[in-house]
Parts: sequence; C-alpha cells; structure tokens
Amino acid sequence: MNVDERLKQLGLTLSVPRRPAGNYRPATLWGGLVFTSGQGSASDEDDAVLGRLGDGLNVRDGYRAARLCALNCLAAIRSVTNSLDVVEGILQVRGFVAAVPEFSDHPAVLDGASDLFVEIFGEAGRHVRTTVGVASLPKGYAVEVDVIARLRT
Amino acid sequence: MNVDERLKQLGLTLSVPRRPAGNYRPATLWGGLVFTSGQGSASDEDDAVLGRLGDGLNVRDGYRAARLCALNCLAAIRSVTNSLDVVEGILQVRGFVAAVPEFSDHPAVLDGASDLFVEIFGEAGRHVRTTVGVASLPKGYAVEVDVIARLRT
Amino acid sequence: MNVDERLKQLGLTLSVPRRPAGNYRPATLWGGLVFTSGQGSASDEDDAVLGRLGDGLNVRDGYRAARLCALNCLAAIRSVTNSLDVVEGILQVRGFVAAVPEFSDHPAVLDGASDLFVEIFGEAGRHVRTTVGVASLPKGYAVEVDVIARLRT
Repeated sequence: MNVDERLKQLGLTLSVPRRPAGNYRPATLWGGLVFTSGQGSASDEDDAVLGRLGDGLNVRDGYRAARLCALNCLAAIRSVTNSLDVVEGILQVRGFVAAVPEFSDHPAVLDGASDLFVEIFGEAGRHVRTTVGVASLPKGYAVEVDVIARLRT
Repeated sequence: MNVDERLKQLGLTLSVPRRPAGNYRPATLWGGLVFTSGQGSASDEDDAVLGRLGDGLNVRDGYRAARLCALNCLAAIRSVTNSLDVVEGILQVRGFVAAVPEFSDHPAVLDGASDLFVEIFGEAGRHVRTTVGVASLPKGYAVEVDVIARLRT
Repeated sequence: MNVDERLKQLGLTLSVPRRPAGNYRPATLWGGLVFTSGQGSASDEDDAVLGRLGDGLNVRDGYRAARLCALNCLAAIRSVTNSLDVVEGILQVRGFVAAVPEFSDHPAVLDGASDLFVEIFGEAGRHVRTTVGVASLPKGYAVEVDVIARLRT
C-alpha cells in the first residue's frame, strides 16, 4: 500500500503545504533527507488549535494539535518530493508545546505527531524526539513540530 | 561578487566570532555542512539587544536582534571555513525569541535573520526555519539563532 | 583507554537507557552519526532533578542536572551502537533549561553536559551548542539535552 492509500485508509487528506509565515521554505532536500520548517497546529482548512496547555487546553486538545502539525509536516515534505512514496521514514521530530510552567505531560501531547508517523510508515516512522514546553508560539499555535525525514535510496 | 564584497555593499562588517559562553565551539564542519552554536543578539561591539518581546521590546527591536544573531552566525561559520566564499547557502535556521506568553509575531522577528541570509546568498540563502518563543535566554538576549550552512562542493 | 574505562575512572556508570516517555526511539543511527532523543535530568536510579532554575534550583543544581542528561544521552547512544568505543566525538548539543524569565546563567548550567563530553572524548567531545530557557519540561525535569554524536569511520 502506498502512502496516499494509507492516508486515505486513515481518513486523512493532505492539501497544499501551509504558506510560510516569513522569508523561508516549507522544506528542503539535503543528502537523502528532507528537513521541514516548524509547522503549527492548524489544518489546511484553518481549523487551528491555539492557546496553551494547562491554560484552557488539555492533553486531548494537545494530542490533536500535534497530529495537525504532523500532517502539515507531511504536506511540506510532499511539496519538495512530489510524492510521499519516496519517503522511507522519519529520522527526527522536535516538538514545541506552548504550556504553563506547571505542565508536565508534553510527551502525551507529542504522541499525536509520533503516532501518526508510525501509523503511516510503520516501524520506519519511529524516530528520535525532543519535546519541550515553550512560553509562546507563532500566531498563538498550541504546538509546533519540525521533522527530518529519510528518503528511499 | 563574493560574500565579503556583498557584506560591504550592505554596509555590514564581521569581525571575530563571539567567544562561546561555555565549554563549546562556535562552529563545526561535518559532511559538507557547517553547524553553528546558538548566537545571541549582541554585536561584536557589545551592542546587545536584551529583554523580552512584548515586554519593552517591539517587533522592530526583535528584527534588529535577529539580524545581529545572523551576523554572529556568519562570523562563527567563517571562524572554521576562513572564508565565506566557500558557503553555498543556508540549510536550516532555528530561532528562539524571549517573549511573553501573549506574544505571537515571532515570524516577523526572525525575518531579521532570514532576510539577511537571502540578501547575502540569494535564493540559496533561503532555508527551512523553526521559530519559537522561550521563557529566557543566556545573558538576557532577546533572540538566539543557530544555523546549518551548506558548503560548495 | 577506552570509553568504559574512562567512565569508570570518572566514577560514572551507565546502565540501560531510560525508557522513552512516548512513541519514539532513544537513539537512531544515520550516515555515520547517532541522533539521540531529548534526555531528562534523572539518573537510572530515578534520582531526578525537577523544577526550575531561579525558582528553588541554583546553577549548581542545574549543572548536576545537565550532567545527568549527558549520561542519559550516552546510554541512549550505547543502546544503538552496543559500545561507546565506536563513538569518535560529539557534533552538536541542544540544551533546554526550565527557568524563570529572569534567569540568564543557562550556559553555566549546560556546561554540566559539555564538560562531561570533553572529559570523556577529549577535544573530539567539544561540540556546537544551543542553550535556551523554557517554560516547562516533560515530567517536570529541570534540564533536557539531546545530542548528535559522530561515529569512528
């Protein structure tokens, strides 16, 4: 099953990558890898998850937000590879969670992104990950994620 | 036009890279890339931009701060390559903005770094970027930036 | 002297890598490098350094916390390389310090990780580093560190 079929099976659709918020690219190819820019928690249809974890948003909201970020990462990757079928798996994920100082469940939030990558790419989708809680994110996003993906050789 | 000439044309000068604040290197070569350490918003002449966005500093201050960080990244790169003419472009930029929780204009701040890289390297200077708002930065810097640059082959 | 002997000489022991807090790997090999996941400030014996710098924790506490993170990074690396003797040195360190907005001594905190890598690998252990202060970290850790290590060729 190719990636597009797998996405369809999961009930997910990718459209165009979100327009960068400044003077940068959504993704870049280098050495058999694809680096993405940080992707915020908003869908293509501008269904955004805004705010902070522990201040109106709970872990369930955060999980959904991280999943939106992961989908945006895939759209950014596809914008430079044309097809996701050339992607072998995910090497690294960095997750930034807008959160109050007392919040400590960041890993459960980021699993929203990690679970999606594993659902799509299987074991090759399982990555190294760094997750931290930040004071604020661009446009008020609740979560921001960037990835490095491996291409098939 | 080489990079030094381009810097001159832009009215910019690089001097020695800023001394690392701890037990680490300003930059390292690996596999045709140069990785820099995080560079704070202070010029070589110790003209520093300190404080937080949304608490005394506005987007214009932040833009200038990010530009200082980018210049320091170039100085760090040159400390290991001797010349910036071996730099083909910029692969990745990470920007950390000291900001209050309510701040949301981080992308406009980081364009201070991104615009500089594009002014100097043209399209090859346009990179992937991740921008987040943090609680505090070393020495009270308003902005901190690190980059991965590509060398000519 | 090999790395295990050097660790012993320094009075340090690595046990099993800490179990990931979510759906991700402790470390991954790619292209002669090892990428680790973010490692929190807790030893294998669950002696954790929790809290924020500038709010009950001082620089000395933070230094010790960063050293614990660095040891966990080494354990994560060993989990995919089997032996640390294949590690040539450390390319990059990213350090995230849970801190109040007024804190500014992050570099002295992260030297707890950097000093350890230099003690173990000598000059090849000296790396590029980015250090920032964050609002909160998973499980309430005071410090989180991830690294990219270089393998011997």
